[in-house]
Amino acid sequence: MEVAMIDDQMLPVSDLGKAHLDRGLYFGDGVYEVLRSYDGQIFALDEHLARFERSLKEIFISGVDMSDIRRKIETAFAKSGHANAKIYFHITRGSELRNHLPGEGLRPNFFLTVESLKEDAKAKTQGVSVQTYPDLRWKRCDIKSLNLLPNVMARIAVQAEGASEAILVNEAGEITEGAGSAFFAIDGRENALITRPLGPDILPSITRAMVTKVAGHIGLSVVEHVQTPRQAAACDELFLAVTTKDIVPITRFDGHAIGNGGVGPICKKLIAEFADFVRAQ
Amino acid sequence: MEVAMIDDQMLPVSDLGKAHLDRGLYFGDGVYEVLRSYDGQIFALDEHLARFERSLKEIFISGVDMSDIRRKIETAFAKSGHANAKIYFHITRGSELRNHLPGEGLRPNFFLTVESLKEDAKAKTQGVSVQTYPDLRWKRCDIKSLNLLPNVMARIAVQAEGASEAILVNEAGEITEGAGSAFFAIDGRENALITRPLGPDILPSITRAMVTKVAGHIGLSVVEHVQTPRQAAACDELFLAVTTKDIVPITRFDGHAIGNGGVGPICKKLIAEFADFVRAQ
Repeated sequence: MEVAMIDDQMLPVSDLGKAHLDRGLYFGDGVYEVLRSYDGQIFALDEHLARFERSLKEIFISGVDMSDIRRKIETAFAKSGHANAKIYFHITRGSELRNHLPGEGLRPNFFLTVESLKEDAKAKTQGVSVQTYPDLRWKRCDIKSLNLLPNVMARIAVQAEGASEAILVNEAGEITEGAGSAFFAIDGRENALITRPLGPDILPSITRAMVTKVAGHIGLSVVEHVQTPRQAAACDELFLAVTTKDIVPITRFDGHAIGNGGVGPICKKLIAEFADFVRAQ
Repeated sequence: MEVAMIDDQMLPVSDLGKAHLDRGLYFGDGVYEVLRSYDGQIFALDEHLARFERSLKEIFISGVDMSDIRRKIETAFAKSGHANAKIYFHITRGSELRNHLPGEGLRPNFFLTVESLKEDAKAKTQGVSVQTYPDLRWKRCDIKSLNLLPNVMARIAVQAEGASEAILVNEAGEITEGAGSAFFAIDGRENALITRPLGPDILPSITRAMVTKVAGHIGLSVVEHVQTPRQAAACDELFLAVTTKDIVPITRFDGHAIGNGGVGPICKKLIAEFADFVRAQ
C-alpha cells in the first residue's frame, strides 16, 4: 500500500488532499506577489500583475488567465472590507505525487490571503536597525519565487542580533538588496538616491520603481550603482523600500548609527512626497 | 475580515488548515530526505538520518526528536508492506500566517510518503541521456532543502531536449552535480572514478559515499576534482548516483555518445558490485 504520514497520523496516499501534494511545498515550485491597498485602493496592481505574469513565464508555468487572477484579487479584496490591506497571492505548478518532472496536464493552484495592514508608524518616524548577512540566494532573484529559505535564514540570523532586516551581501562583497526589501542610500550633497542596478541578482521591486519616480518630484536624482557595506554605512541616509511599508528609514547599519542616528531630512521629505503620490493615484 | 481564497473558493483565514499555512509552501522553509529499501531492508538509514539532522540544524530548526523520526519511518515502511520502497519525508518549520520571521513556539510539521519502487532496468542496461544546464541554485546546496525550483526548471528544460537528467554547470564553467543526482566520470586507463569534492555547492550524497566505498572493492580509486563538460564528455564512462536508482550509466552527454555509446565495462562491474554490497547489508 502507498502510505502517507502527517505528523503522527497515517493514511493512504490516495487520501492526501491537494494541499499535501502541492509542488509549492515539495519544490517551492511557484511564484507570488504581495500587494497593498491605501484607503480602499489597491496600489500598483497593473505593475504587480505584469511582474507576476513574467515570473510565471520564467519558470515555465503557462495557461494562467491573468484577467481571472485580477478578478480574484479584486473580489477577495472587496469581500475583506479592509481599506488598508495586505494581499498575498501565489500560483504553484499544481498538485501530484512528488516528482521533479511535472506530470502532463497539471493544473496550477491559486492561493490568496487578504489581511488588515497596520502601519508601523514607529519604524517610519524612528527608523530601523539593519544588519548585513551573506546573500545565499539563487541566481535568478529577479523571479519572485517561493524559494525563500535563504531570506528566512537571513531574517532569523539578524533578528537574533536585534536587527529588523538583513541587508544581503554577495560573494563579491557588494550589497544586493534586503532579505524582503529594496535598499537605497542617499547622498545628501549630490541630492541623489543610490541603488543597485536591476539584474538577475535582485528583484525588480515595484516600490523601488515608485520611489524612483517620486524622487524626481522633489529634485532627487537616482544613481544606479553597486555599493559595499562600508560605502553604504558612510552615506548620509539609508532606507528600505517594500510594498507593505513603502519607505522605511534605516538609522542603524551593522550596529553603527547612520548620519546623526535619527531619520534624515531627505528621507522625511521622500516619505511625505510618497504619501502625496499615493493619495493622488 | 481576513479572507483567503483557494482556487475559486473563498473562506475566512481562520478556517485555513495547517497545510495551507505551511512555511514549507510559502518559503520552502524545510528539509527532506529520500530513502529506499532493498528486499525489505531500508538502505543507509543511519546515514540519511545523520544528514537530515544536520540539514535541520543548518536552517535553525531545533527540537526535533530524531529517534521519533526513525520510529515514524520504520512504522510507515512496515505498514506499507513494500519490499522495495521509496520513502520520502520532510520537516518544515511549522504552520502560521505568512511572515518571513517565524513566530515563537512554532511546531515543526512532519510529512512522509512510502511508495512502491519499480526498478528502471532499461536505464541500467542501456544507459541514459543527459544534458548540461546552468546551475542556478543557492549557495548552500549541501543542505537538502525544499528550495528546489532551479532543479525543477533544469529537469523541465532538458527533458524538452530528450534528456532524463540535467548536469548542472556553474558560472565558472564547472560541473557541480545532476539536478537530482551525483555525477561521476570514469578514467579507464587509471582505473579511477572522478567526482567533484564535497563543499557547499553540492549535496553530500549518500549514494556517492556508498559508491566510493564499493569502488574500492573492485580496485577503483576515487579522485576528487572539478571537471568541465568538455573534460567529462571525453572520459571513458560516465554515470549518475542517486538513492532511488543507485548507479545509472550515462551513454549520451549533450547529444554526444560516451565511449562506444553503450554501457561501459567498469560501470557494469560497479553496478554488479553495488548489488552485492546491498545484499550484504
